[in-house]
Amino acid sequence: MTIEVLGYAAQSSQSPLVPFKFERRNPREDDVVIKIEYCGVCHSDLHQARNDWGFSSYPLVPGHEIVGRVSSVGSKVTKFKVNDLVGIGCMVDSCQSCPACHAGLEQYCEEGNTQTYGSVDRHDQRPTYGGYSQTIICSENFVLKVPESLDTKAVPPILCAGVTTWSPLRHWNVGKGSKVAVVGLGGLGHMAIKLANALGAEVTLFTRSVNKEENAKQLGAHHVVLSTDESQMNSVANQFDLILDTVPYDHDLKPYIPTLALNGTIVLVGYLGEISANSVPMILGRKSIAGSVIGGIKETQELLDFCGEYNIVSDVEMIDMQNINKAFERMLKSDVKYRFVIDMKSLTKNI
Amino acid sequence: MTIEVLGYAAQSSQSPLVPFKFERRNPREDDVVIKIEYCGVCHSDLHQARNDWGFSSYPLVPGHEIVGRVSSVGSKVTKFKVNDLVGIGCMVDSCQSCPACHAGLEQYCEEGNTQTYGSVDRHDQRPTYGGYSQTIICSENFVLKVPESLDTKAVPPILCAGVTTWSPLRHWNVGKGSKVAVVGLGGLGHMAIKLANALGAEVTLFTRSVNKEENAKQLGAHHVVLSTDESQMNSVANQFDLILDTVPYDHDLKPYIPTLALNGTIVLVGYLGEISANSVPMILGRKSIAGSVIGGIKETQELLDFCGEYNIVSDVEMIDMQNINKAFERMLKSDVKYRFVIDMKSLTKNI
Ligand SMILES: [Zn+2]
Ligand SMILES: [Zn+2]
Ligand SMILES: [Zn+2]
Ligand SMILES: [Zn+2]
Repeated sequence: MTIEVLGYAAQSSQSPLVPFKFERRNPREDDVVIKIEYCGVCHSDLHQARNDWGFSSYPLVPGHEIVGRVSSVGSKVTKFKVNDLVGIGCMVDSCQSCPACHAGLEQYCEEGNTQTYGSVDRHDQRPTYGGYSQTIICSENFVLKVPESLDTKAVPPILCAGVTTWSPLRHWNVGKGSKVAVVGLGGLGHMAIKLANALGAEVTLFTRSVNKEENAKQLGAHHVVLSTDESQMNSVANQFDLILDTVPYDHDLKPYIPTLALNGTIVLVGYLGEISANSVPMILGRKSIAGSVIGGIKETQELLDFCGEYNIVSDVEMIDMQNINKAFERMLKSDVKYRFVIDMKSLTKNI
Repeated sequence: MTIEVLGYAAQSSQSPLVPFKFERRNPREDDVVIKIEYCGVCHSDLHQARNDWGFSSYPLVPGHEIVGRVSSVGSKVTKFKVNDLVGIGCMVDSCQSCPACHAGLEQYCEEGNTQTYGSVDRHDQRPTYGGYSQTIICSENFVLKVPESLDTKAVPPILCAGVTTWSPLRHWNVGKGSKVAVVGLGGLGHMAIKLANALGAEVTLFTRSVNKEENAKQLGAHHVVLSTDESQMNSVANQFDLILDTVPYDHDLKPYIPTLALNGTIVLVGYLGEISANSVPMILGRKSIAGSVIGGIKETQELLDFCGEYNIVSDVEMIDMQNINKAFERMLKSDVKYRFVIDMKSLTKNI
């Protein structure tokens, strides 16, 4: 027995997203059934729908910034009850027994984690389908509690864009007195600025567009530096304890490394591919280049609690499910401040 | 008034090292005067003598792995007395007031440290001359105590090659249970193996030469991996907490990064120049590429004390001062196990 669910799927790398009915498993004893209210639109959704990374399987139902309410729970679920406001991010399972999983770092699970969509469930081998849909079913170990105090529709991006920047901010001990720079002002960058600011850091945005200054400062940046202006870059030499580089395409790291302080680190969170740098400023200041991917379940919950305490949500533009293909096109032009969120009530509008 | 000293100098980038008489300052009140007994021959000596890095000034008296005995002390010297066995490494001064200096990390002094040779003294603007000479004069703040129990002639390389590997081993918290790999088996690599082993780590040498296995194991390596053999490299995937990369020339980092464990770091200590890597394994395992240069005075003293306790010295081949030019040629072919040390008694042999 299975549950029939309506969603939106890409049927191939060439086709737009269209309505799609599919089956989800009957809840297992540790499962939570969630009626989805909102789902954020992440760049990964677009890339995977179009098979830009070469490993997509179809039909593909994207969506890993999911917020909704519990509609039922399995017999052994202890952490959630019906009507709880909850979230699901990029992962729905992992081995639960390797050192990384034990450390709450399921994103680095030695067996690989099970992604919210485009993966295969490790127990029943069924494909996983994401949050562009009515309902999702997931082990309580991968379900997050969402504070009721927050503006719910602006919460979803916290679950991917948010924790992707939060995890390195926490791992590299950002707090009061830290100097943090953010490269790029998109979905990830705008959350990075808000979170670093709330953690007490002095925050700088590196950008290539002069016209982003006002927006960045509204989000919480204290300074904006034009990365194409050599004298501005020289003026911030040896400054930053941490640079969060959110840029998703190939770009030159060389200008940023000299702006790191002694023992500083530039963390790549958005770009998969070849990088190049010069070792001289790294060696002469014990500077590092690192990578980081999303965040673990424990730190995602910590982030949601932190957002509840500091009343932090994303800046979002709401869309109906039917407009997802237009939204993808606008995302490609960075024409959104700063994240589209689908109102899932729209899903059944015209049906 | 000054002190006349005999040494060996390069008079230009083209000329061999030849005898050279020069003046050293009269000791200042915080200075220690040291009669040099032994001086190690570092790759930097060769590179600076030949102006390979483009910033040499002549005459150039190389040598920054210096061991000798105190022959006199200035009026305010408190840490040393006549006849003490002492050492000088790569630095003879720094600003002494920036955060790096206060942290005992003079190698990262914000004003730049004063190098043992080829620099300019920050108080009297005289050029600094290194340890290929009879006598050196240096503030007590940059003089190290050398344990009398060690084989003195094999101590000098600890002061550069040793601390260059010790500093990252300590900074990245290597100890019992750590898995450390060393790339390259030369002056730095052989010290890295000895020190990582003594710190309790499980040590692997990456090498491109099959015939280094026996030597590496004698030095304390538990495993040797042929970096050109793909199946051997795959067998150590996700293993190492720290890789010390001692290779001084341009080389490909890509094969090494996948061998880092979660949160692992590859530290470049020998190569100045362009590097390239792929961000995918970095992001999927929170792996880092870092740089590190020599070590601070505090950690150099800590290292000498550690070497005293564990009876660790370098493997050296003794030479007379007159043979330095031949030694340089042999170093270029890596034809030394693992460091030449000049017996400074030879300096006045034929004069
Ligand atoms: Zn995402
Ligand atoms: Zn796991
Ligand atoms: Zn050296
Ligand atoms: Zn300083």
